[in-house]
Amino acid sequence: MVQVILLSGGSGKRLWPLSNGARSKQFLQFLSCPSGGRESMLQRVIRQIKESSLDCDITVAANDQQRDMLINQLGDSVNVVLEPSRRHTFPAIVLSCTDLLLNKGCSKDSVVVVLPCDPYTDAGYFEVIKQMASAAERGLADLIYMGVKPTEPSDKYGYIFPDDTSAQLAENVLRVKNFTEKPSVTDAEKFIANGAFWNSGVFAFRLGYIIDIVEQRYLKVKDFAELRSRYSELPNISFDYEIAERTRNAAMVPFNGNWQDVGTWNILSSIMPDRTIGNVHLGTQCSNVHIINELSVPIYCDGMTDTIVAAGPDGILVSAKSASDTVKQHVDQLVDRPMYEERRWGTYRVLDRTSGSDGMQSLTKNLFLRPGCNISYQLHHHRQEVWTFVDGIGRLRLDDEERIVRAGDVIHIQREQKHGLKAITPLTFIEVQIGTDLVEEDIVRLEMNW
Amino acid sequence: MVQVILLSGGSGKRLWPLSNGARSKQFLQFLSCPSGGRESMLQRVIRQIKESSLDCDITVAANDQQRDMLINQLGDSVNVVLEPSRRHTFPAIVLSCTDLLLNKGCSKDSVVVVLPCDPYTDAGYFEVIKQMASAAERGLADLIYMGVKPTEPSDKYGYIFPDDTSAQLAENVLRVKNFTEKPSVTDAEKFIANGAFWNSGVFAFRLGYIIDIVEQRYLKVKDFAELRSRYSELPNISFDYEIAERTRNAAMVPFNGNWQDVGTWNILSSIMPDRTIGNVHLGTQCSNVHIINELSVPIYCDGMTDTIVAAGPDGILVSAKSASDTVKQHVDQLVDRPMYEERRWGTYRVLDRTSGSDGMQSLTKNLFLRPGCNISYQLHHHRQEVWTFVDGIGRLRLDDEERIVRAGDVIHIQREQKHGLKAITPLTFIEVQIGTDLVEEDIVRLEMNW
Repeated sequence: MVQVILLSGGSGKRLWPLSNGARSKQFLQFLSCPSGGRESMLQRVIRQIKESSLDCDITVAANDQQRDMLINQLGDSVNVVLEPSRRHTFPAIVLSCTDLLLNKGCSKDSVVVVLPCDPYTDAGYFEVIKQMASAAERGLADLIYMGVKPTEPSDKYGYIFPDDTSAQLAENVLRVKNFTEKPSVTDAEKFIANGAFWNSGVFAFRLGYIIDIVEQRYLKVKDFAELRSRYSELPNISFDYEIAERTRNAAMVPFNGNWQDVGTWNILSSIMPDRTIGNVHLGTQCSNVHIINELSVPIYCDGMTDTIVAAGPDGILVSAKSASDTVKQHVDQLVDRPMYEERRWGTYRVLDRTSGSDGMQSLTKNLFLRPGCNISYQLHHHRQEVWTFVDGIGRLRLDDEERIVRAGDVIHIQREQKHGLKAITPLTFIEVQIGTDLVEEDIVRLEMNW
Repeated sequence: MVQVILLSGGSGKRLWPLSNGARSKQFLQFLSCPSGGRESMLQRVIRQIKESSLDCDITVAANDQQRDMLINQLGDSVNVVLEPSRRHTFPAIVLSCTDLLLNKGCSKDSVVVVLPCDPYTDAGYFEVIKQMASAAERGLADLIYMGVKPTEPSDKYGYIFPDDTSAQLAENVLRVKNFTEKPSVTDAEKFIANGAFWNSGVFAFRLGYIIDIVEQRYLKVKDFAELRSRYSELPNISFDYEIAERTRNAAMVPFNGNWQDVGTWNILSSIMPDRTIGNVHLGTQCSNVHIINELSVPIYCDGMTDTIVAAGPDGILVSAKSASDTVKQHVDQLVDRPMYEERRWGTYRVLDRTSGSDGMQSLTKNLFLRPGCNISYQLHHHRQEVWTFVDGIGRLRLDDEERIVRAGDVIHIQREQKHGLKAITPLTFIEVQIGTDLVEEDIVRLEMNW
C-alpha cells in the first residue's frame, strides 16, 4: 500500500481575487468533471488517483485555514494533516511522514509518494507515479523524481540531470547525476540542451529515508504531538532545497504527457471548459476572452482579445492573459480581509463595512449554515449582532434558553449575551455587527452540546 | 433676458453601468472643475453659461426620476420643469415653453435657446449661442440652428445645408436651405462634400413660434396644469423631426470650436482628467486605459491597451474603447433594479438580495440621510424592516412616539408599524427588509410634520 501525500499548501496569490488564504487555487471549482458539473484541482487529482490502479492511502497536507474547505470538498475520504503554522514544503512533508509513522502505524519501509495538487495532467502521469513507487519499493534509489520534459527555459523550476553514461536502473528509471533548483533563464537554456528535465515536485521514497534525515539533522520526537509543538524547529525551507539538492542517490522517471502548472489565470483559463462562468454578457467582438464572475451583478464585455476578467467579493481582475502573472506582486496591497469564506459549517459573504465618525463600525454579512451544522456558542465583549433570518429553520440558543427560529425572525444579540445557532434545514440569514472594535478576535467560545 | 432651456432627458444607456434611469450620464461627476474637485456634465454646462456673459434665466427640462439628482447637484439655482411621463424632445420642449409663457410670465417675443447638456465644449460655444439669440431677437429667421463643422460622415446627426447662393443674413448668420435628419453614411459623405454642417441640437427661436405651432397642430391650453394632463396628446417625436425638418425659414450660426457629444465611454474617458477614479491598481503594462471604480473592493488591471473598465453597484463593463458603444444594445438584459440611487434625502446602496425557499425574501441596504432630511412617515403591509444605526443622530418616530436614535441603536419595525426618520446629523444605517413581497410599491405614506 503506497502512501500518497498530497500537498495542499500555497496561497495562490496569482489567482487573486478568487483565491485567498482560506480558498487557495486548488479549491476553485472551475474544471469540468466527467460526471458533469465542475470540480476543483484538488477534487480532480484525487479522482484521478482513485481512477488509476495505484493501491494507496491519501494524506492531504494542508494548513489550518484550509481545513473547512477540505472537508467540504472531500468529506471524510482522506486523511488530513494540518500544519500548526504555515511553513514551507520540507516541514509540511515531515509532518505528514511523522503522522504516517507514529499515528497511522506505517513502517519505515512504506513507500511514500509526495505530489502537489496543482498540475493539470492526464492519466499517464499516474502511470509514471506507479513506476516511481515501484522503483522506491525496489530500493533503486533513495529519492525518485518525476522528470518532466521542458517546453521552455523557465527559471521557475528545478532541473534534473539524468546520468546519460549509465544504463537505466530499470525500465524508464534513470540514475540522476545532478539537480539544480531554479537557475537563470540562460543557464536553463544550457541545461535543456544538455538533456535536463524539470522537477515536477513529485517524489517517491521510503518513509524511513526522510524520518532518518530529520532525526540526524534536526530532532527526534516521541509522538506526533511533540512534532507539532516543536514544528518551528524544522527549517522553513522547501523539500527541493533540503532534500532534492542534497541527495546523492537519486533516480528519475521521465513523464512526457500533458503537464501544466495551473498557477496563473492564463493557464487556468486555457483548461476551463467554458469561456464564461456566472452572470456574464459577451458582445460580438470578443476573442479568446475568459470571464469568471462570482458577483451577482452582471459583467458586460466587448471588443477584447486575449483577456481574463475575474470578479469576486475580494475584488476585480482585468488582465491581458500574458500579464496575468503580475497580480502576484500587488496582492498584498489589494487584500484587506477575505470577503467570502467557505467554512465547514457553511459560507459567509461580507456585504458591507461602514465606519462611523465616533469610532462605531458595522460589518454586514450574508451567512449560510448547512443543515446539522452550527456556529459555536459564544459571546462578544464589544459588539452587538442582529440576525435576520431569510430562509430555513434553526435552533437558537440565547443566554442558555433555546428556541426555534425561521425565515422572518429577527434576533437582536446584545454585547455579552451568549448565543449559538444550529441549522435544522439549510439556513440563510443576514448578520449586522455593530460595535467599536469589530475584530474576529472579539469572541469568547463557550462549551455546549447541541 | 434670454430663456435657456437645458434638456436633461435621456437614459444614458451607453454609459452603463454607472448611468441608470435616475442617474443619467449628465449627472456623473467625472469631469474636472476649475475650482478643483469634479463636476458633472450638467454642472459644467450651467457653470459655463454663468461664466459667459449671456443674460439669461435657465430652465432644466427633466423627468421625474431625475428630480432629486437635479436638486442635489444644482440646488435652487435653476427653474426645473418635470415631464409627467418620459417622452421625446418635442413634447419636452413644448412643456418648458408653456411653463415660461403661462407660469413665468414670459412674452411670446421672448427669445428661447434650447440646448442639450451633454456636449463637451469650450467658451466659444456660448459666444455662438449669443449670436443665435441675437439673430432670433432680430427676427432674422423663425429657427436658428447651431451648425457644427463635421469631422466624419456620421449617421448619428442631422445635416444642415446653408444656402451658399445668398449673402449672410448678418455676420456669421447664414440662411438655411435644407435640413436632413440622420442620413446614411454614404449620403453623409456627399453632404459634407457639399458644405453641410451637423445639427448640434442647439436652437434659438421666439417663444411664440413654438407656441403657435403647437396651437395650430395639436392643442391650446388654458394653463400649465392642463398641458401636463394632456401631455400624451403631443406626438412622441424629436424636435428635429417635428420642427427642424419642417421649418422653411431657418438660419444657422456655424461653430468651429471643441464639440464632443459625451455619450459613450470612449469619449467620456477622453475628457476625464484622471486615468483612474476609485480603488484601482494599474500594473506597468497598461496604455490608454481608463478605469472608474465605484465599488469599495479593488480593481487590478495589467497588460491592457485602449480599454475602459467601469464598475458600480449595477454591474461591471470591460470594453475596448472602440466597442464601448455596443453596451447600449444589451442594457435591457443587464438592468434589473437600480442598485444605487441618489435621492434628495440622501443615498442608498443595495448590498444584497436573497430569496428563501418558501417565498420569503430579504433586501439589505446601506442608507445615508443628509442632516435635516427625512424619509416619509410610512408603513408596509408585507415586510418588516430592521435598522441598525452606524453613524450620526436622528429622530425616529415609531407608532406616533418619537425618540432619538444614534450609532449602535437597533430598531425592529414590524409589519403595519408606522415609522419615520429624520437626520439631525449625517445619519448612516443598515436596513434589512424581510417579507414575502418585497416591492417598492408596498408603502403607505402617512401625513406628519417633523
